[in-house]
Amino acid sequence: MNVLDMKDPAFLKQLSEKELSEVAADIRAFLIDKLSVTGGHLGPNLGVVELTLVLHQLYDSPKDKFLFDVGHQAYVHKILTGRAGQFDTLRQHKGLCGFPKRSESIHDCWETGHSSTSLSGAMGMTLARDLKGTDEHIIPIIGDGALTGGMALEALNHIGHEQRDMTVILNDNEMSIAPNVGALHNMLGRMRTANKYNKAKEDLELLIKKVPAFGGRLASTAERVKDSLKYLLVSGMFFEELGFTYLGPVDGHDLHDLKANISYAKKTKGPIIIHVVTKKGKGYAPAENDAKGTWHGLGPYKIESGEVVKKPGPPSYSGVFAETLKTIARSDDRLVAVTPAMPNGSGLDKFAKEFPERMFDVGIAEQHATTMSAGLAAQGMKPVLAIYSTFLQRGYDQLVHDVCRQNLNVVFAIDRAGLVGADGETHQGVFDISYMRHLPNITLLAPKDENEFQHMLYTAVNHEDGPIAVRYPRGSGLGVPMDEELKELPIGKWESVRTGKDAAILAFGTMMPVAEAAAELLAAKGIEVEVINARSIKPLDEEKLSEISESGKPILTLEEHALQGGFGSAVLEYYHSAGIHSIVVERMGIPDWYIEHGSVPELLEEIGLTASGAAEKVQKLIPRKKQRA
Amino acid sequence: MNVLDMKDPAFLKQLSEKELSEVAADIRAFLIDKLSVTGGHLGPNLGVVELTLVLHQLYDSPKDKFLFDVGHQAYVHKILTGRAGQFDTLRQHKGLCGFPKRSESIHDCWETGHSSTSLSGAMGMTLARDLKGTDEHIIPIIGDGALTGGMALEALNHIGHEQRDMTVILNDNEMSIAPNVGALHNMLGRMRTANKYNKAKEDLELLIKKVPAFGGRLASTAERVKDSLKYLLVSGMFFEELGFTYLGPVDGHDLHDLKANISYAKKTKGPIIIHVVTKKGKGYAPAENDAKGTWHGLGPYKIESGEVVKKPGPPSYSGVFAETLKTIARSDDRLVAVTPAMPNGSGLDKFAKEFPERMFDVGIAEQHATTMSAGLAAQGMKPVLAIYSTFLQRGYDQLVHDVCRQNLNVVFAIDRAGLVGADGETHQGVFDISYMRHLPNITLLAPKDENEFQHMLYTAVNHEDGPIAVRYPRGSGLGVPMDEELKELPIGKWESVRTGKDAAILAFGTMMPVAEAAAELLAAKGIEVEVINARSIKPLDEEKLSEISESGKPILTLEEHALQGGFGSAVLEYYHSAGIHSIVVERMGIPDWYIEHGSVPELLEEIGLTASGAAEKVQKLIPRKKQRA
Repeated sequence: MNVLDMKDPAFLKQLSEKELSEVAADIRAFLIDKLSVTGGHLGPNLGVVELTLVLHQLYDSPKDKFLFDVGHQAYVHKILTGRAGQFDTLRQHKGLCGFPKRSESIHDCWETGHSSTSLSGAMGMTLARDLKGTDEHIIPIIGDGALTGGMALEALNHIGHEQRDMTVILNDNEMSIAPNVGALHNMLGRMRTANKYNKAKEDLELLIKKVPAFGGRLASTAERVKDSLKYLLVSGMFFEELGFTYLGPVDGHDLHDLKANISYAKKTKGPIIIHVVTKKGKGYAPAENDAKGTWHGLGPYKIESGEVVKKPGPPSYSGVFAETLKTIARSDDRLVAVTPAMPNGSGLDKFAKEFPERMFDVGIAEQHATTMSAGLAAQGMKPVLAIYSTFLQRGYDQLVHDVCRQNLNVVFAIDRAGLVGADGETHQGVFDISYMRHLPNITLLAPKDENEFQHMLYTAVNHEDGPIAVRYPRGSGLGVPMDEELKELPIGKWESVRTGKDAAILAFGTMMPVAEAAAELLAAKGIEVEVINARSIKPLDEEKLSEISESGKPILTLEEHALQGGFGSAVLEYYHSAGIHSIVVERMGIPDWYIEHGSVPELLEEIGLTASGAAEKVQKLIPRKKQRA
Repeated sequence: MNVLDMKDPAFLKQLSEKELSEVAADIRAFLIDKLSVTGGHLGPNLGVVELTLVLHQLYDSPKDKFLFDVGHQAYVHKILTGRAGQFDTLRQHKGLCGFPKRSESIHDCWETGHSSTSLSGAMGMTLARDLKGTDEHIIPIIGDGALTGGMALEALNHIGHEQRDMTVILNDNEMSIAPNVGALHNMLGRMRTANKYNKAKEDLELLIKKVPAFGGRLASTAERVKDSLKYLLVSGMFFEELGFTYLGPVDGHDLHDLKANISYAKKTKGPIIIHVVTKKGKGYAPAENDAKGTWHGLGPYKIESGEVVKKPGPPSYSGVFAETLKTIARSDDRLVAVTPAMPNGSGLDKFAKEFPERMFDVGIAEQHATTMSAGLAAQGMKPVLAIYSTFLQRGYDQLVHDVCRQNLNVVFAIDRAGLVGADGETHQGVFDISYMRHLPNITLLAPKDENEFQHMLYTAVNHEDGPIAVRYPRGSGLGVPMDEELKELPIGKWESVRTGKDAAILAFGTMMPVAEAAAELLAAKGIEVEVINARSIKPLDEEKLSEISESGKPILTLEEHALQGGFGSAVLEYYHSAGIHSIVVERMGIPDWYIEHGSVPELLEEIGLTASGAAEKVQKLIPRKKQRA
């Protein structure tokens, strides 16, 4: 069947296992083909083809509710629900979203992006169902990586307690994004080796019941008791302790086994967890054999060779991050690095090659990562927590109380600050200044390029006066020359990179090139604009701010960040607190809505955060007489 | 021994169990006596007297590190480390802090207040120790309630994986603040019934080893096998699955048993969890027999009768909250209430009496509570999440993505917004506007009194246009008359409660009486000030703001909230975005540091957030000629 003809998953109801297996092959071929051009989360989706088919065969979406945790593994679901035709636009501006999206389909009932939310969402839907007296099935599908996130564990605890009907699919592919860490992971590993859990359990129960009758045959079964007991102990007990009925492990690529277990779960009362073992990248050798997580989510690749298409270019910020940390770590024993499940994305895998004892991947656990860093700092270490802007939202309370309140020397390397592009709404890093600026004791910096970034990291590690954060963007630097020697930058001091008497643009980070280009455009019109690299967001450079206001220049602030409570807002606060009420300050930044997926330039264009947009804004601030045209 | 003579816990080293037990009695008597005057967390501290004594006898603080989770159970520790003499000032302004405080003592190595942080902090300290090659013991002490917080579970997962030496004391008193909920709690309950866990385990292992030799005696032991197996299955397996050595349950009031187990743990490698069963309120009958959580933390009481001293006064905000929700729920089936472990504090216990099926206490699990509410709303329910301002910080990412991004109709009843008083730094609700104002889709309101509060709640439940939050203070209302009929208030509309041509004060919530008093003070000086109840924080009342700017009046904004990114900042943003640059706006609010404990009036006085402070500020804004004096 042509996947483009799939409009409604109901067609699956009639299919035999053999036919399902043919559909699976068609979908795999389609995904491998389409994603070779657009890029996307290939590995996770190849792993859940059979699982998604069986779910849609046995349940009735949209009446029954599938909640895809994280959600980047919902491509098969999107195909089955009539969206194959849009895969050419996957993760592109105005195109198909890489995550479930309610506005796309009635079959998408829950939007995700960050991990570990599906169980809580499902619990809410389950309670709603029971209060309304309806009878739909609620089926969260959660990976083994997402299960280590604290909120998933909170939800397990509550679901086990409430004992409502719900079927949790644990999609265990032994990886989250990178290879998984943590005791839960180890436990799941033990479970996987216990192939026939239910049989072992039955064996043991039978044996115990029959002990009196065994007589002389006991000797020969003693070993078997021990083995069975071992199976019992390592399998499913964790979940059964929490009040779940545990089924599995089930081979996630065996349609028969999947159907048998999911059918059984449908008939069983109370919360059930089906432990499905899948293989990321199943059916495409380069992705199946991926140990590093390259095929988790990637750009275009060559189908035959599995060669990933790489564009040459300047070093990435995460690459500079890793190299700089290594340099500092060689002479500073206090430096340790922490990541919540992002060793590759952050670049810390490279750091760990040289300093394996000084890098801690704590799994998907941002709260723990943040407070553990506070614990390290409390004992005199210099922890550098590498964390994406959007994921630090998970560690916000810990940042407020455990780090900032205790005024501990934790360095936050806030990666993916600003717009991130294809991952869209849940991954844009556009709130960090607003959620951090009001925290006492913190220092907040942002570099204009990769060379300044290395110095800023060095400055942060050497900062002995409380927490400090450096926010930097996803992707490549500007290709500027890198200084050989690391040096400390003054905190609370900005840098004037261009002089101009008519106006001042205050920018930082990725907005610096935009500001400079705007200044060029204005220069062509005879307007001379000072461009200031406002790299210290907290504290502000008050001396410089006073100097500008004394000059009477109007100001434009430019930030790749939400306008409310952002950098521009800090500038307004400063002036009004200083009693300077007459200053003209215009602010440009991210407006008050969630920014969808698309390339960063497209998104910036859409919201007008461009050189021409900035130039236009400045021009409006300048009295007519100063302007040439 | 007089507790006032205790200066250093080293004195405990030499004491016999009998002597320790006398010290325990002295400390109990001291606590019951002192707290009857000051109030405080009596129940939790009476429960840990023996435990704290044994910890200080067997370990060497400050070299060894105790991390008291939540921290309100550290009073015994404070007494033993020389702070008994300060108990008359407990939780008072400039007095002894109710939580561990590093500036108070070298024995306080880790500050807490919010739950579930101790394991992560301990893990950081453990990694630091191993990297530095020192040999101190790291001992987090965590309650069974705190264990349900997601970050504690994240930490357990990581600690179990790392297998470093650490001894976790699980202080299981069967309550968190209110009676505990959740599957973990049920499991701990089963463990408690398994009195002799270790013995059962040994029995079973022995039996299995000896199966061939049992011969004819097997029949009589079959039942015993089953029982032992049951014990094995229900006891400690949860923690052992996660990689911990489990010891217990230990009677937390049996000095001998405590010493034996903690001594054993000291010698054992890897992560250990000692399950200590304590009784909250132990040794003081009124507190021991407390089923509702009254004696968890309270004000003054009469020692003999256990009668809690209550001051008569207007209804509390939480009381009005409960009554209003009940009224709405009677005619709106969609309304359900959710609390993360605060049924009493929030007032929802009263709601649950009438609607037991429509109130969900999810335990200490703010992330889950937030996203579960999103799930309820996604299926057409109207969840009201009652949560303290400071605790919603734990659900921040869930608020950003699961609620606001999906634009779901969740009502946030943000209790304890503003200063809270005696609980101090970790409980002040002074960041919520800053961490919410930049979130798209949200509406943010604050009532000036309890009558407006009931209408605002009604407005929020009937709001069909996305998430809405109502922030209200701890404690009592103003005693205003309550309207009989609930009515909807217009969103984005402010209320002018006093006219005046010389200036405008924009205030909301608890600052309204302050603003009105300031206006009175100014009136006496001939300055006429308009007082505006700016009850809609997002959206602002832009019409009113334009009107004020057109009038040319200078503005003072008044908020019991952090200045950075707060309400006043929103006002500045509005004017500058509207191109109104010449307006004079002064802002008053909470400065850029953490506000310590003390009564709310004392704290407001300290930071100048008073009627006279506001009047003075306004006066400076008014040109001299307008002023009489």
